[in-house]
Amino acid sequence: MAEFLRVKTVREVLEIIQGFEALEAERVPLSHSYGRVMAMPLDSPEPIPHFPRATMDGYAVRSRDTFGASEALPALLEVSGEVFMGEAAPHSLQGGKAMVIPTGGMMPEGADAVVMVEYTHVLDEKTVEITRPVAPGENVIGVGDDIAAGERLFPEGWILRPQDVACLAAVGCEKVPVVARPKVAVISTGDEIVSVGDGQLPLGKVRDMNTHSLRGIVNAAGGIVGTVMVLEDDLERMVHECRNLFVNHDVILLSGGSSVGARDYTLKILDHFAEAELLVSGVAIRPGKPTILARVGKGFFWGLPGHPFSAMMVCHLLVAPMLDVLQGKQARHRPLGGTSTVKAILDRQLPSVHGRTDCIPVRLRKSNDGYMAEPVFGRSAMISVLVKADGYVVISEHDEGLDRGVSVEVHLFSPTWPVQG
Amino acid sequence: MAEFLRVKTVREVLEIIQGFEALEAERVPLSHSYGRVMAMPLDSPEPIPHFPRATMDGYAVRSRDTFGASEALPALLEVSGEVFMGEAAPHSLQGGKAMVIPTGGMMPEGADAVVMVEYTHVLDEKTVEITRPVAPGENVIGVGDDIAAGERLFPEGWILRPQDVACLAAVGCEKVPVVARPKVAVISTGDEIVSVGDGQLPLGKVRDMNTHSLRGIVNAAGGIVGTVMVLEDDLERMVHECRNLFVNHDVILLSGGSSVGARDYTLKILDHFAEAELLVSGVAIRPGKPTILARVGKGFFWGLPGHPFSAMMVCHLLVAPMLDVLQGKQARHRPLGGTSTVKAILDRQLPSVHGRTDCIPVRLRKSNDGYMAEPVFGRSAMISVLVKADGYVVISEHDEGLDRGVSVEVHLFSPTWPVQG
Repeated sequence: MAEFLRVKTVREVLEIIQGFEALEAERVPLSHSYGRVMAMPLDSPEPIPHFPRATMDGYAVRSRDTFGASEALPALLEVSGEVFMGEAAPHSLQGGKAMVIPTGGMMPEGADAVVMVEYTHVLDEKTVEITRPVAPGENVIGVGDDIAAGERLFPEGWILRPQDVACLAAVGCEKVPVVARPKVAVISTGDEIVSVGDGQLPLGKVRDMNTHSLRGIVNAAGGIVGTVMVLEDDLERMVHECRNLFVNHDVILLSGGSSVGARDYTLKILDHFAEAELLVSGVAIRPGKPTILARVGKGFFWGLPGHPFSAMMVCHLLVAPMLDVLQGKQARHRPLGGTSTVKAILDRQLPSVHGRTDCIPVRLRKSNDGYMAEPVFGRSAMISVLVKADGYVVISEHDEGLDRGVSVEVHLFSPTWPVQG
Repeated sequence: MAEFLRVKTVREVLEIIQGFEALEAERVPLSHSYGRVMAMPLDSPEPIPHFPRATMDGYAVRSRDTFGASEALPALLEVSGEVFMGEAAPHSLQGGKAMVIPTGGMMPEGADAVVMVEYTHVLDEKTVEITRPVAPGENVIGVGDDIAAGERLFPEGWILRPQDVACLAAVGCEKVPVVARPKVAVISTGDEIVSVGDGQLPLGKVRDMNTHSLRGIVNAAGGIVGTVMVLEDDLERMVHECRNLFVNHDVILLSGGSSVGARDYTLKILDHFAEAELLVSGVAIRPGKPTILARVGKGFFWGLPGHPFSAMMVCHLLVAPMLDVLQGKQARHRPLGGTSTVKAILDRQLPSVHGRTDCIPVRLRKSNDGYMAEPVFGRSAMISVLVKADGYVVISEHDEGLDRGVSVEVHLFSPTWPVQG
């Protein structure tokens, strides 16, 4: 394992990630397919509509029987039965006859158009007057006019929305071939870390935050959170747990303690996996520099910084895009940081360094014609900064900072709700 | 029950909805609290940090022992033990002494500052040189400096994001008081409707789409989809099922058949519920006019149009905002149609009528400096229109149409992925 990789830029890490293959396909019932990604292109097995349907309430007719009809000189047709919703037309239509039909009703054989009820007059039980001609095909939708049998419905990589699932139901697909969702284990390590369930906090200890924030981000990115644990800095134990977790997880997220040596510690874990291939050791990002990514057989191992804001930002900027790629979502859909963005005016200057990506938490404030973004500062250990921020601004590696008053893209921590409270 | 209500505008319906009360509170474990809404304000039960912590690696000292120290004339301090991560400081610090401390370590009693390791020189096992003075409190975060005990963490109505859940973990909240999620039954009715699971499609029948599209929208809006069923137009059966469903559902969504009489049919169902209060019967919206909303005891009943696009639009524009209100999300967060929007240039003129809200499905196309919105037209029965559209444009009741070339807000069908394929 090459232990001494050069620190990579965010762009370089994303390029590595975009080279990963999607997970395998699985077939899921329609009711579980919403938000999932098509594992292969899908052609419609059936036409829509399945039978020629009226698109208006009225009378099914042979269009030529109506040619020349007008208010002054209506065509007289014999009423020959009625089509009921959900039933086959009772019989085929002879020339000179008309059949009552509702919107969505099945056209009888022999009929090629529908006269809207507005242009008819019932003379008696047996006869209807038609006061306007209809063209062949008028007010009718033919077999396959909406979706032809064999027509490409969705390409590979398509993310299924509510209407897409409904469309699959319409053409009779009960199970859908989608890409598997990555199963992710989340481990928080550090001698000082205890779980929120552990009761009274001993002096010198702090409660684990990272499994909670990472869980939410993984969920939102479509991953399945599997095992979640808090571990002390015990190398043997960590190696043991990771080995077990890789049996039924695709990804392990291990956030290190906040001590200086955390990164080396994570590398030591990887030393125990003969099949580990170190891909990233250090990223030019603030916060989040001591980030590690390795491939371990078919699985992926992330060593994340222990600091809550750092772990969260790396999860947003790098782990979530990887989960997208593993799900077959095309990475270009989530360029940097994913989720929703909103434009805002930066309310102060932000210095940065060329070659490094900086993530600055900001608070949004409504202004006359949009939003102002106020950087939320605090000493780096601050938890309250995370809570106060509505989102973050990314200063890319090509910029040496952002000037006050420029328009910035704020990546929102909450996709639907720009500004809370 | 007032059967003959005036058709209401979308704005009026939203105002009615905003008057609904949120559901009751429930306490959920942290691991289930992501995305949920605080049912009451929450004050921090504990301070963060819980103990004074070093924010740098170095030496815990009494600051006055360093005053006047410089490279030329360093202060000499006796090294008195070491603080380990996750442990209480071994003893208090006497004057003239220094204790080794890591970032995040617990400050010993008596110490009031940390000298960064960069400004120290180890002389021998027992002695360290300090080459810079530190001020009281320097490189230390005191008890409650980040979050004070009793400080307001979240107001009522706050939607919990990943970092908020992490913050709750940090202050020791294992269970969170959140508003219950509305449980929603989804019924698709119509003599012509069969379920996708029913095998070969008989002539004249079509497969149910609405339960599938409504399910996805309800899920995305935070509702819990309970019973899902497809029913024939059998009034007695419908009344019976609805009565049963109201026992353990907060909301029933019933989409009618596409026949003209569907709306009257839905009203007939409500006639059988003595406690039903009709709130809306007809909305000035296209598509979606024959929409009904009634309160039935503590529950809500929606009669939605049977046409797939209409049912979907009404669910996006009216039902989803109601689910927000029932969850205690403040309605202003989801002004019209919810989810994410993107600005685009309209590529053709769209006529409309004053007093009516129009929803036009559009496809987004990348242009030089943004997106173009192309209306997706098709005969109204078209399913493929739904699949082709990336989102929709709303022409408000105050507008009589939109001109070609104007900038419009496109409401995306998929919150994260603006343009697919």
